[in-house]
Amino acid sequence: MAFDYTSTFRPNMPAAPKPGGAGPAFNFVGGNMDPALIPVADLIAAFTSVIAREGPNLAFYNTGTGPLGYRPLREFVAKTLKKKAAMDISPDEVLIVSGSLQALDLINKLMLNAGDTVIIEEATYGGAMGRLDALGVSYEGVALDEGGICMTALEETLKRLKGDGVTPKYIYTIPTIQNPTGTIMPLDRRKRMLELADEYGVAIFEDDCYADLIWDEKRPPALYALDAADSRDGARRVLYCGSFSKSVAPAFRLGYIVADWAALGHMVPMKTDGGTSALSQMVMAEFCQTKFDSHVSASTASLKEKHDVMLEAVAAEFGTSAEVEPAEGGIFLWVKLPDAVDTSALFPAAGAEGVAINPGPEWTADGPANKNKMRLCFGSASKDEIRTGVAKLAEVCHREFGVPLRSGNVER
Amino acid sequence: MAFDYTSTFRPNMPAAPKPGGAGPAFNFVGGNMDPALIPVADLIAAFTSVIAREGPNLAFYNTGTGPLGYRPLREFVAKTLKKKAAMDISPDEVLIVSGSLQALDLINKLMLNAGDTVIIEEATYGGAMGRLDALGVSYEGVALDEGGICMTALEETLKRLKGDGVTPKYIYTIPTIQNPTGTIMPLDRRKRMLELADEYGVAIFEDDCYADLIWDEKRPPALYALDAADSRDGARRVLYCGSFSKSVAPAFRLGYIVADWAALGHMVPMKTDGGTSALSQMVMAEFCQTKFDSHVSASTASLKEKHDVMLEAVAAEFGTSAEVEPAEGGIFLWVKLPDAVDTSALFPAAGAEGVAINPGPEWTADGPANKNKMRLCFGSASKDEIRTGVAKLAEVCHREFGVPLRSGNVER
Repeated sequence: MAFDYTSTFRPNMPAAPKPGGAGPAFNFVGGNMDPALIPVADLIAAFTSVIAREGPNLAFYNTGTGPLGYRPLREFVAKTLKKKAAMDISPDEVLIVSGSLQALDLINKLMLNAGDTVIIEEATYGGAMGRLDALGVSYEGVALDEGGICMTALEETLKRLKGDGVTPKYIYTIPTIQNPTGTIMPLDRRKRMLELADEYGVAIFEDDCYADLIWDEKRPPALYALDAADSRDGARRVLYCGSFSKSVAPAFRLGYIVADWAALGHMVPMKTDGGTSALSQMVMAEFCQTKFDSHVSASTASLKEKHDVMLEAVAAEFGTSAEVEPAEGGIFLWVKLPDAVDTSALFPAAGAEGVAINPGPEWTADGPANKNKMRLCFGSASKDEIRTGVAKLAEVCHREFGVPLRSGNVER
Repeated sequence: MAFDYTSTFRPNMPAAPKPGGAGPAFNFVGGNMDPALIPVADLIAAFTSVIAREGPNLAFYNTGTGPLGYRPLREFVAKTLKKKAAMDISPDEVLIVSGSLQALDLINKLMLNAGDTVIIEEATYGGAMGRLDALGVSYEGVALDEGGICMTALEETLKRLKGDGVTPKYIYTIPTIQNPTGTIMPLDRRKRMLELADEYGVAIFEDDCYADLIWDEKRPPALYALDAADSRDGARRVLYCGSFSKSVAPAFRLGYIVADWAALGHMVPMKTDGGTSALSQMVMAEFCQTKFDSHVSASTASLKEKHDVMLEAVAAEFGTSAEVEPAEGGIFLWVKLPDAVDTSALFPAAGAEGVAINPGPEWTADGPANKNKMRLCFGSASKDEIRTGVAKLAEVCHREFGVPLRSGNVER
């Protein structure tokens, strides 16, 4: 037999299913947004205006303005974070990245070696844990409540690790619209977290990806802002990332890292991708300068309505079988079902009927302890899809696990 | 002193210079293109048309059409490669990537471990070698002539490595407008290379990034095409990549990998970036469907004029001190200077006068043996900049190394 290149592949490569086919009819997973909210006319106006002016600069890598990204977009990020998150930063503290996933990769590359330990929230973004697994980095989950990470639990974990001779590299936190619990960490906890970071010599990786989507648009200052304000000797504890994927659209693939040059200066040469799409950056900058605030307000209002519809549907269809708290913003609910339910088994059963969910174990540090939980996203589905899909999900759950016993006051 | 996160960074991180300031006045480096060639009006028309139709799909990661990328763009790639490179492929053999740099990363991730060996051309793309260095992979350079890799030299290298018990993972080749020599490998060598790959059990990584920019638009079939036509038992030897950075504009950050699903299926889950900018993909697909061929013809004609201007300028300013062959396409010349010249030292001296060059050691496997060579790019500079910049470069070279002795028939 002839030589075939598959014999040269590294062992244990992941395999993808053959692509193709439509997505699930009731899509309650992923960071997808509502197609009805894409500001098509404003994007066309922004593109026309910016490309007529800047188009020739597409001939250059990084639009010829250096590796941090398109300057007007960095200026917009700095201005907006000052207004919203009290971050008094310069555009030169902002690195535009190809979605916040690249932010995770760059910060991990800056700090982590195989065998290292980091601290995460007990329920957190699955993609962050997947990256840590791939790097051979261990993680410790810390308990959450309605205010995000519990500081007593964090202190206990730090103390225990210190006793074991382990200094974690960072605390990965999503303090403002936590993923998946939808909470906002209050100011006093933020301050306490910075004290603990100082005391135990641990950096903080603040992921604010959902922070633009807060129902009442009120939030405490970012950890980054509090750190900078409090910083002695210019010492820094916090690396920050954010995204345009939730506030405008994921398919632009635009996020940003905010950090001191002491950190950014090392990340820039590790961003070996020839720059982030300048087309995306230019259109986003032009759009945001006049439309960002009104767009985010309209999106958030619409998401709040869908949040309420999903919360009602879960209550109506699952009754007392489901424990769920309203989110303070964002695009998801975190639902706890009775112990009898295994959401990893519910996942394929519901999938067969067109309902996609995130099983709890994919979104938690301790999978087995969270097999009865699930994340339900309402970002992309319509209100009708939410109602019908949640009803279908309850039916499948009843069939597979015997709960919920009743639905909409009708015995199943 | 307070805790500072810099203490947690990995050792030996690279550092970037603080960004800012204008680029060099005479920019003869990098893959930058001519700003005058950016088709501004056609891009605005393409954007307006595609976003009016597809804009709502920006709400979805990967535009909701799966991880391989925007289907109309994959269809265009398949159609164009069939016409130009005789590659009879399906759109499902095409993975859209964020520039061909991501293609290098994914193929390396698929095949390479630290300690592996690969074969490269003795002079080749610096970014490819940088990636191999970072991975701890060794490379062996093979001699080039006016037809690309010399097959006798390749066979000798393969034989020697085999004698040492080393099976290289792949042969990295840029057969169609070689970087930096600007040559096109003829058909008979392509066939011979496939035989050698088969005989020695080595895959071929075919990088066709400059293949759209051929002066007379004539080229042999891609190695990928010859392999597929010749394939027994469905066995494959060639992984292929290409790019829109040179044919349209680098700042879209769009390239593609062509490979059998046996390889693509593993690369898709390793592309953990949430997709390549769909905005870039949509605009590119729409633009290309009606404008690609005429745009590439016009660009190539313009680049040929600048190529000729640079060739003349080098001859006029450096005289017999410079050995240089005309390129068959592309955006660069590969220039050999007398042994007395060290282009790594010429680089900062010329840079101080606003002339940027690629020193030979950055673009060759054996740096010390190529210290008297340099790559000069003419993609982004104007004709006047080329003439003035090359004259300045000759002046600096004379001042630093005593050559060229004369310039434009005037004794220096």
